[in-house]
Parts: sequence; structure tokens; C-alpha cells
Amino acid sequence: MSENQPEPLAPQFTVTALLYDEFDLLEVAGPLEMFGLLPEYFTIQLVSQHGKPVCSKQGPQLVADYSVYHTFQTDILLVPGGPGAQDAIRNTVIMNWLQQHSSKTDYICSICTGAALLAHAGLLKEKAATTNKKRYRWVTGFGSEINWYPVARWVKDGRIYTSSGISAGIDVSLAIISQLLNEDIARKTAIEAEYIWVNDPTEDPFAPLHIVQ
Amino acid sequence: MSENQPEPLAPQFTVTALLYDEFDLLEVAGPLEMFGLLPEYFTIQLVSQHGKPVCSKQGPQLVADYSVYHTFQTDILLVPGGPGAQDAIRNTVIMNWLQQHSSKTDYICSICTGAALLAHAGLLKEKAATTNKKRYRWVTGFGSEINWYPVARWVKDGRIYTSSGISAGIDVSLAIISQLLNEDIARKTAIEAEYIWVNDPTEDPFAPLHIVQ
Repeated sequence: MSENQPEPLAPQFTVTALLYDEFDLLEVAGPLEMFGLLPEYFTIQLVSQHGKPVCSKQGPQLVADYSVYHTFQTDILLVPGGPGAQDAIRNTVIMNWLQQHSSKTDYICSICTGAALLAHAGLLKEKAATTNKKRYRWVTGFGSEINWYPVARWVKDGRIYTSSGISAGIDVSLAIISQLLNEDIARKTAIEAEYIWVNDPTEDPFAPLHIVQ
Repeated sequence: MSENQPEPLAPQFTVTALLYDEFDLLEVAGPLEMFGLLPEYFTIQLVSQHGKPVCSKQGPQLVADYSVYHTFQTDILLVPGGPGAQDAIRNTVIMNWLQQHSSKTDYICSICTGAALLAHAGLLKEKAATTNKKRYRWVTGFGSEINWYPVARWVKDGRIYTSSGISAGIDVSLAIISQLLNEDIARKTAIEAEYIWVNDPTEDPFAPLHIVQ
């Protein structure tokens, strides 16, 4: 290879999304779309308890690359919500994996009610966090010593990002891209996806539409 | 069952998304999220050439319920885009299926470069249509006698909807929900998904950011 042809860079970050039965489809697919539009920087993988196709709340099944019994490396862990979060939070295999794996990953990001899993696993202790405002009371019943934000599109506290409902997962993913790479790349990714990025974490037009108490 | 307990309504519409290798993940998952949030009205199914898991451009695989050789009914057919559209358009099995199946479905909706498949199949002849503006020249090279809109979030012409890039698939899906049910249900669905619905088909903030000629 000549000096004028730089070697292509290997992907710098691995993004792993946790799947469980009745996860919310867009809460996984939205973030993975953003990271997946930048294959030169991000490698994507999916993990579930059994490593097989997992049925979303909406019906379509996504195929998990790994089971929780596999050993693999990840830099960014995505934890979606969905109706299945209610069972997942009582699933000791998933919760033990989440606790053990959380120490091995640089960043953890929950979408919607995925924050309940982080809270229950003790990962949000003494942290600022948010969640879907429509399920705010249920989610904030888990964990302790958490500074819950009732109005926020997303919240970053150290290595932990938590976001509001469903589509907010796209916004927080762009925020992670912005932090890990730069805002210009995040903006171009949003434009490529023709997505109107809510790029202010305090902008939460949906909180007033739900009952937040 | 007493007179006071009405029988639950069966889903009234079946939505089928066509998958092919390297489809764009969000162009399928975004629309299916919107329809999937209304299971009392919509049943979702996925079809691909071989009826197996199909790999998206971003990597994650969605599982097809049917192959093109199965017989099944659908009311709404979704045709996504993605880099794989270039191969899909040369795949006679997929294109023949699209032509044959299009006459059996009430509504056809393309997302992004999925419009190229509709154009090549002759389904847009003498129709108004739009597509992703970033791939505008490539898509508009297919078909003939098509009134292409260079600036539009989506276009409806009779039973055919075509939309702009990636996220516009969510907006057009909400427009279909609005038409088939009513705007109130579509608005509530967007709120449930915490999605800021672009509810004006002429609003296309991304067209000027791409080169449209």
C-alpha cells in the first residue's frame, strides 16, 4: 500500500443492544440505525438470553448474535424498554448479566422503560436519570438514591445515558455519537436519516402530554 | 357474552413489509412501530424472497414470516429502500412478485429508494411521487411518465404513497393511519412514540441539504 493510501480504520466502538421478549422495536432499531449509518466507527451486535430471534412488542423478530452465556466485548450497551421490561426485570439471568456486564462496558444507555432495568440493577444509584414520562411512576419505583428528571429528552451522568420514550432513543444515540466523535458527524448522520434531531436534552415536548407526578 | 360487553374487534388491516438483503433497518422498523402501536387495527407481517432472516444494511436481521412463494393477504404493502435496492431492482423474483402482488393490495407505500422498485415495476406511471432527495437522480431514472416531486416529505396519489428518506417513513405511516382511521388516532400514536410528526407532506427540510437537480 502506498503512502498516499491510508489503511482503512477498523471500527472503533462496539455497540451491543440487549433484546428480551416484547422489547419495543423502534427503541432498538432507532439507535442501531444511527450507529449503523457509521460503519467505519461502530460495529453492531445483539444479545439476548438465548441468542435466538426475539419477538418485539410490535411483532417483528430481531435475531440475537449472542446469548448471555457468550463472552464478547462491548463499548456501548443499549438497554431498550417495552412491555417486556416488566418480565425482564424479574428475570434473574438477564439482570445478573446486566449487573456483571455493566462494569465491562464504557457506556450504558437506556431507552424508555429500559431505565427500570438499570435502576433495579443498581446502576443509577446517586445518578441523574430520566425515562418515559408515561411510565414515570412505574420506572421510578425501582432503585434508590436516584435523581429522576421528570422533564428531559435524555440525561447524561458520567458514563450512563438514560432517555425518554421510544423515539428519544434516536436523539440520545446522536448525542453519544456527538460525544464520542464530534457534533458535525452526529448532525450529518441525522441528515442522512432525514431525522429532525432533538439536540437539546432539556427539550421534552411529551412530558406535559403525559401525567408526570 | 352479555350485551354490555362488545366483542373485541379483529384487526382490520394487514400490513406487509417487503425485506431484501441490505434493506434500511429504520425504513422498515419505523413504519412497523407506528402500525404496531395499534394492534387493535393492524396486523404486521414480513415477506422476503426466501422467508428467512434478512440482513439489514445496518447489520441486524429481521425474520421474514413468509417467502414470496407463500400465498397471503395484505391490505398495505410497505417497500423500503436501502443500499440493497440496487440489487433488488434487478431481482426478477422480487420484481415479479411486486408487480403481481400490487394489484391485490389496497395501499402501497414506498420509503426512500423503495420508490425505485415501484417505478421500475410500472406502479408509478402517470402518478405523482417522491423519494429520498440524496438519491433523487438514481431513483428518478426508473419508470416513465412519473410526476416526481423534488421537494416533499411524502406524496399520496390514489392508493400509492411514496416518501422521502429513512425517517420520512414514520411520517407517511402516520398519514396512512390518519387516512384509514382518523387524525386523532395518528396524533396519539405519534405521542405514544414520542415522535415529532412532520404532518405536512410539503415540509421537506432535507431536500435543500441534498443536491436536487
